[in-house]
Amino acid sequence: VTIEVLNTGTELLLGQVVNTHLAWFGRELFPLGLRIARQTTLPDGAAIRQGLLEAFDRCDVLLVTGGLGPTTDDITREITAEILGRRLHEDATIVAAIEARLARRGFAFRPRMRRQAMVPEGATVLPNGNGTAPGLYFPATSTAALATPHLFLLPGPPRELRPMFADAVLPILRALHPAAAAQDFRSYHVVGLGESAVEERIGLTLAERGDLEVGYCARPNEVDFRLIGPRETLDAVEPLVLAALGDHLVSRGNGTLEEVVVGLLRAQGKTVALAESCTGGFLAHRLTNVPGASEVFPAGYVTYANAVKTDAVGVPAEWIAAHGAVSEPVARAMAEGALSRAGADFGIGITGIAGPGGGTAEKPVGTVFIALAERGQDTVCTREAFPTDRATFKDLTTQAALDRLRLRLMA
Amino acid sequence: VTIEVLNTGTELLLGQVVNTHLAWFGRELFPLGLRIARQTTLPDGAAIRQGLLEAFDRCDVLLVTGGLGPTTDDITREITAEILGRRLHEDATIVAAIEARLARRGFAFRPRMRRQAMVPEGATVLPNGNGTAPGLYFPATSTAALATPHLFLLPGPPRELRPMFADAVLPILRALHPAAAAQDFRSYHVVGLGESAVEERIGLTLAERGDLEVGYCARPNEVDFRLIGPRETLDAVEPLVLAALGDHLVSRGNGTLEEVVVGLLRAQGKTVALAESCTGGFLAHRLTNVPGASEVFPAGYVTYANAVKTDAVGVPAEWIAAHGAVSEPVARAMAEGALSRAGADFGIGITGIAGPGGGTAEKPVGTVFIALAERGQDTVCTREAFPTDRATFKDLTTQAALDRLRLRLMA
Repeated sequence: VTIEVLNTGTELLLGQVVNTHLAWFGRELFPLGLRIARQTTLPDGAAIRQGLLEAFDRCDVLLVTGGLGPTTDDITREITAEILGRRLHEDATIVAAIEARLARRGFAFRPRMRRQAMVPEGATVLPNGNGTAPGLYFPATSTAALATPHLFLLPGPPRELRPMFADAVLPILRALHPAAAAQDFRSYHVVGLGESAVEERIGLTLAERGDLEVGYCARPNEVDFRLIGPRETLDAVEPLVLAALGDHLVSRGNGTLEEVVVGLLRAQGKTVALAESCTGGFLAHRLTNVPGASEVFPAGYVTYANAVKTDAVGVPAEWIAAHGAVSEPVARAMAEGALSRAGADFGIGITGIAGPGGGTAEKPVGTVFIALAERGQDTVCTREAFPTDRATFKDLTTQAALDRLRLRLMA
Repeated sequence: VTIEVLNTGTELLLGQVVNTHLAWFGRELFPLGLRIARQTTLPDGAAIRQGLLEAFDRCDVLLVTGGLGPTTDDITREITAEILGRRLHEDATIVAAIEARLARRGFAFRPRMRRQAMVPEGATVLPNGNGTAPGLYFPATSTAALATPHLFLLPGPPRELRPMFADAVLPILRALHPAAAAQDFRSYHVVGLGESAVEERIGLTLAERGDLEVGYCARPNEVDFRLIGPRETLDAVEPLVLAALGDHLVSRGNGTLEEVVVGLLRAQGKTVALAESCTGGFLAHRLTNVPGASEVFPAGYVTYANAVKTDAVGVPAEWIAAHGAVSEPVARAMAEGALSRAGADFGIGITGIAGPGGGTAEKPVGTVFIALAERGQDTVCTREAFPTDRATFKDLTTQAALDRLRLRLMA
C-alpha cells in the first residue's frame, strides 16, 4: 500500500508555520502497518492541481491537508472536483452544522462560508467536530481516463484534523487494509555513543541479516536506533541489542533522558539539587518539564555571579580566587553545596564557558566541569569540552550531567 | 527563480522527528526575495534517486537535507554523484577536520567515517563547523543528457545545517540572484496582543491599500506581524505601524523578548535576580541564552520545595502556611528575597501551578502569580491564568514576566 501526503499552505513554505501533520500521520499510521512513501508541500492555489495529478499516478492512498476553508485561497475542494469531473452540491446538514457552530460562539454566518458545505458527487462527508469545514473522502476509482487513489481531503488546523483523522480516516484505512500490520517497530534511545559507534556495536550485524530495517536518528549526544521487522524477529534480536548497547540504553521507546532520571529518582525515593552556572537554569528546566518533578527536585541554584556561588551554595571565595570560577574545586563545591543546602540526596554542580566570549588558552570556550555529589559518597568531577554554539553547549552539558546521574542511579 | 527543498529521512515519515528545516529555509530565503515553490520528503535509500531526477526537471535551485552521515542509510552523496556521473575522491582536509573534531571530543576515528570525506568531482565543499559531514555545492550544469539546478547537499541535524546555510549557502544564492530582492520585508515582534488585535489595529488598514502583503505568525503570547512590499512604501507606513502597536512592539526584526530585556538592562547598567517555582528555571534559561547575560543576571533561585523558598530567598514559612505556596504574598516575598539576596536592582518572583496535577477549585491548574520588585519601588504582583499544557504554561508565564520587566525598563 503506497501512501502519500500532500500538505497545502503558503505559510508552510514561507516558514510561518512548522508542518506537524506529517510526523503525526506517520505515528498514527505505523501501528496499522502503513507507512508514508512521500510527502509534498505546495503553496495555496493552482500548484495543487499538478501535485494531485502526480500523486494520483504514484499512490494507493492520498492524504491532502488544507485549502478547505472559506477564504479565496482555499480551493482544494474545487480543484479536486474539477479533476475528478464531479459536480458539487450544497449539503443542508453541513450548512446547519456551520450555522449552529457559529451561533454557539456568537459569530455571524457569512455567505462565503457556504462554500464549505459544497460536496462533490460520490464523496463521503467526514464531520468536523472542531471547526466549520468538513473533510471529504473519495474512494479509489479507475476509468480509462483516470485512476485515482483513495483520496482524503482534510482541514489544515491540527485541532480539527487530528480528531477527524482518528475518528473517521483511520477506520476507513483499517477496513481497506486489515492485514497490513505484519511489521513491528522498535526504537532504542541511546546516550553517550555516536551513531557510528551504535552501528559498529550492533547496527551492521542486524542490517546484514536482511530481514530487519535498521535506522539512526542523531541529536546532541543522543541517538535513536530504530528497527523495523516482524515482531518475532525483533523479539529474537532484542537480547543482542541490549547487550551491545549496555548502560548507554536510556529507554526503549521515546522516553527522554530527563523522564528516565526523574522516574529513577521517584522509584528510589531520592532527590537531587542543582547548582548551575554556565547552563543557566537549563538543567532545572529540563527536569521540571517532567510532570512529578517536584517530588525529586527541591532546589536549583543558578549561580551566575561568583559572589552568588559563595552566598547561595557556599563555594569558598578563596577557591574561586585561587582556581577560577571555572575549575574542578568550584564545581565540586557547587555540587556539595547544593546537596547540603537543599538537604538532597544528590547534588550536581556545573561551571564552564558557554561562549561566545570568556575563553582563555588554558580554558577555551566549551570547557565545562561537571560534578556529581552523593550523600555519603565521594564526589566525582569530570572536565568536558563542548566547543560549539551556546544553545548546543547547554544541550550537551545538561545531557552529560543527566546521564552521569542516570548511571549512578542504575549502579 | 524556482527553489525546491528535498528533505530525506525515514524518521520524518515515521513521525519520530518533526521537519523544522522547511520553515527555517523559508524564513531565511525570504529576505533575499526568494520563495520555496515545493518541498518533498522522502525516506532514506533508493527513493532519493527518483526525487532528485524529478526536482532537476522543475527547479533552478535545489536544497537537499540529510543522508550525508557515516551510517549505511546515508547515501545522498553517493546517489547524487552517480546521477551526475561524477567520480568521488577522498579529501584529505576533510579527513583531517573529522579526526581533529573527534580527537577534541575524545571519540575514536572509525573507518566508515571516511565516507564523509568523499567529494564528487566539480563539487564545492561547504565546511561543517558543528559536525563531521561537510555539505556539498554543485553549480548548475546543462548537457544534452541532463540539466541540473544549483544543487546543495546539506546535513540533516539542524545545529549543523543552520550555520552552514547561513555562512556558505546564502552567500552563494545572493551572488546568483542579486536582483531578486526587489521587495522588502519588515517584521514587527509584538507581545501582549493577539493576531486579531494586531489585524484590527493596523493590519486591515494596510491590507486594504493593495500594495502591501500583510501576514501574521502567532506563537504563545507573541505575534510576528509581517509586511512585504517596496521599501519606500514600508518606510511610509512605518509610523502608522509604530503608533498602532505602541509599547506592545518588542523589536523590529527578529530580536527576541529576552534579547531586548538583556539589552535594556545592559544599557542601563541594571541587574535582575529570579526566584522561580513553577517555571522551574526556564526564565533563567531564557535570559542566559543571550550572550552577555552574565553582566545583568547574577542569580536565579529555583525554589521548587517550600523549605527552599524560605531558605534560599527568605519567604516566611508562616506566609506559606497561611496563604499557600501559590499566593500573592509568597510571589512578592520571592521577588524581594531574590533581589536582596543577590544584591540586584530588580527581582522577579514566580509561583503557580503548571499542572497536570496540583490544581484546586480556588487555584486551578494554570494559576500563576508574577511579582516584580525594584530597589526603592513598591513591588507589583499580578495573578494570571494560563490553563494549558506544561510546556506552554512555562512559555506564557516567562513571556509575561519578561514583558513586565521590559515595560518597567522602558518607563
